[in-house]
Amino acid sequence: MTEMTTDRLTAYSDGVIAIASTLLVLNVHPPGVGEPLTWSTLWAQWPAYAGYVISFVIIGIMWVAHHRMVALLARVDETLLYLNLALLGLIAFIPFPTAVLADALAQPRSSEIVIAEVLYGGTMAAIGGVFTLLWFHLARRPRLLRASEHHQTARRRARLALLGPLAFLLTIPLAYLNTRLPLVSYALIGGLFASRPPRS
Amino acid sequence: MTEMTTDRLTAYSDGVIAIASTLLVLNVHPPGVGEPLTWSTLWAQWPAYAGYVISFVIIGIMWVAHHRMVALLARVDETLLYLNLALLGLIAFIPFPTAVLADALAQPRSSEIVIAEVLYGGTMAAIGGVFTLLWFHLARRPRLLRASEHHQTARRRARLALLGPLAFLLTIPLAYLNTRLPLVSYALIGGLFASRPPRS
Amino acid sequence: MTEMTTDRLTAYSDGVIAIASTLLVLNVHPPGVGEPLTWSTLWAQWPAYAGYVISFVIIGIMWVAHHRMVALLARVDETLLYLNLALLGLIAFIPFPTAVLADALAQPRSSEIVIAEVLYGGTMAAIGGVFTLLWFHLARRPRLLRASEHHQTARRRARLALLGPLAFLLTIPLAYLNTRLPLVSYALIGGLFASRPPRS
Amino acid sequence: MTEMTTDRLTAYSDGVIAIASTLLVLNVHPPGVGEPLTWSTLWAQWPAYAGYVISFVIIGIMWVAHHRMVALLARVDETLLYLNLALLGLIAFIPFPTAVLADALAQPRSSEIVIAEVLYGGTMAAIGGVFTLLWFHLARRPRLLRASEHHQTARRRARLALLGPLAFLLTIPLAYLNTRLPLVSYALIGGLFASRPPRS
Repeated sequence: MTEMTTDRLTAYSDGVIAIASTLLVLNVHPPGVGEPLTWSTLWAQWPAYAGYVISFVIIGIMWVAHHRMVALLARVDETLLYLNLALLGLIAFIPFPTAVLADALAQPRSSEIVIAEVLYGGTMAAIGGVFTLLWFHLARRPRLLRASEHHQTARRRARLALLGPLAFLLTIPLAYLNTRLPLVSYALIGGLFASRPPRS
Repeated sequence: MTEMTTDRLTAYSDGVIAIASTLLVLNVHPPGVGEPLTWSTLWAQWPAYAGYVISFVIIGIMWVAHHRMVALLARVDETLLYLNLALLGLIAFIPFPTAVLADALAQPRSSEIVIAEVLYGGTMAAIGGVFTLLWFHLARRPRLLRASEHHQTARRRARLALLGPLAFLLTIPLAYLNTRLPLVSYALIGGLFASRPPRS
Repeated sequence: MTEMTTDRLTAYSDGVIAIASTLLVLNVHPPGVGEPLTWSTLWAQWPAYAGYVISFVIIGIMWVAHHRMVALLARVDETLLYLNLALLGLIAFIPFPTAVLADALAQPRSSEIVIAEVLYGGTMAAIGGVFTLLWFHLARRPRLLRASEHHQTARRRARLALLGPLAFLLTIPLAYLNTRLPLVSYALIGGLFASRPPRS
Repeated sequence: MTEMTTDRLTAYSDGVIAIASTLLVLNVHPPGVGEPLTWSTLWAQWPAYAGYVISFVIIGIMWVAHHRMVALLARVDETLLYLNLALLGLIAFIPFPTAVLADALAQPRSSEIVIAEVLYGGTMAAIGGVFTLLWFHLARRPRLLRASEHHQTARRRARLALLGPLAFLLTIPLAYLNTRLPLVSYALIGGLFASRPPRS
């Protein structure tokens, strides 16, 4: 009775994830009072728009991934609860590295872009890491799962989930080679995860 | 089991749409510290209030339209999931063109107002376009619908939905004729969509 | 099937009302970078804290009042939908008059305080007015109600609901007599509505 | 029928708590326009990150504690409703003392850190105090509980809940001894509450 239900875990997680993605728009500022509004001042902000799009899509994909995991759950234990809290804390943090990345891309200093990309890729890798821990936890605790056949699924997902943090970790050295490469990688990683079939 | 349920799609969508409309208030600023508070300084901000009202109402109408679509769904496929994500990303973006429009209207330069109206009308047209794609997708995938008679509904709605992006696209050339015309159009389009019967 | 369900109306309304009350904290600013943090600089912000408390409580009471109304509903028609949207738009606007009131109270010019109180009381009166319209609408449309005995309730509530906007309208002339009187009135009105029995 | 259901109390509470924790990210600012982005300017903001982590975790633990309480409820009375509103108002306020604490820690003046810690610890103690009042209320009103065996639980929890405000009150004098001690205490208190078993 007093155990955390998956329903309420879902409600809180959906709330935090939806709010985090909606707050991203606060990083896109209209031109200041003194500055004139022209197509070129609007266009000069392309990194802010790009950051908005990439982070909104990545958070959306994480929400789908989170749903796929929670759909297998019959119950929630302490470890899962706190791993999920860490996951939410990192996802709710995404507006910050997104803003830093957009600000850095708007300026021509490549050293700043590298730092921003390490921060961004690192945050995403950390989120992927917590997702992986969650799947490994489920693979080791079959009693948390709805059905015995989900045990196989959880083990397979745990191995697959490792690809997320690895992919984002790999974007970090890319930043030192060419500051545009990590941006391409984020889009590719997003596309890759989005194209994973919803059942497996 | 691991398929996305319409329930959770609804919860996430409602969350994002509700937050986007509530964040609009952050575009309405109290007068700054140095500036005195008088009826005329409050009134000078009328574009911020107008932007708040128009965008709040338009987002509300979009929420109703979204509900009408989701109510027909029996299941969710990948395409629908990602089209819905694109829809949410555009709706959550609305506070930005709203702020740009309000700032432009507060200044007497008509060239800025035109740019802001193109941005605002373009964002709304893009949202209408994604709504149309969603309805055409449902019209082509009857297995996603709750009942066979909804197939007819989806096809009719797909054609009707085209009116949304077209109407907003038409506001763009109006901006070049007279900067007040698009504002009137937004209200008319809102009123038109609001008055569509809830069943059809 | 494609009619708006009361469930989803509740979800959207709860979302907007919860977010509006939580955004109030953004009006409470930590002292700026140059300014030292002392007990007196913290205390100098008392109007921001008072505004937070009063508006949070008033929004909370409105949420309870909204719940009491929705609990009687069997179905939702167009008028109810758009009146509810107007209600949400006004509630989501509350952070703005709250910020204006807090800023005005922090300065010693009583003419500014009067303007801020008229704005605040006027917003609250408008919300009370929409609540009254909603109750009168329900009193005239028994088919929207869950049970026939709710018809009596709706009529009684419609008359009682008139007290809300009247009470807030009365705070407006008070502002011209003494700038502290409306603040006392907001607390009294809040207390009065809070103490109304949950069943009637 | 018109009584507040625990479902809707849960929805509103989850909304406010989820939003409050997500708004914490707005306290973490990217370096300003003039300021260069280097690892040391990013690192100079460690108090903002620390504040984010501590407050996100504490709000998460409060959400779990809130869930444990609501799970025992069969119905909601007026007192519970308004105590819950006070609880939500204090939780939604957390971003402010968090921002004040982060700003103070970023500056080397220990007198400011003490003030910020008193404010932070005081807010947390007040939240703990309202939680305690809620448990004592449930212990005195068995008719609000789902089952008769929950009466014992409520009484035990009421006594345990007292530890929360006491622990946070004790961090206040610690601030005067050493400005780092309260920070350690917040983490310890968080850990202690997190490790309480989900059933008891």
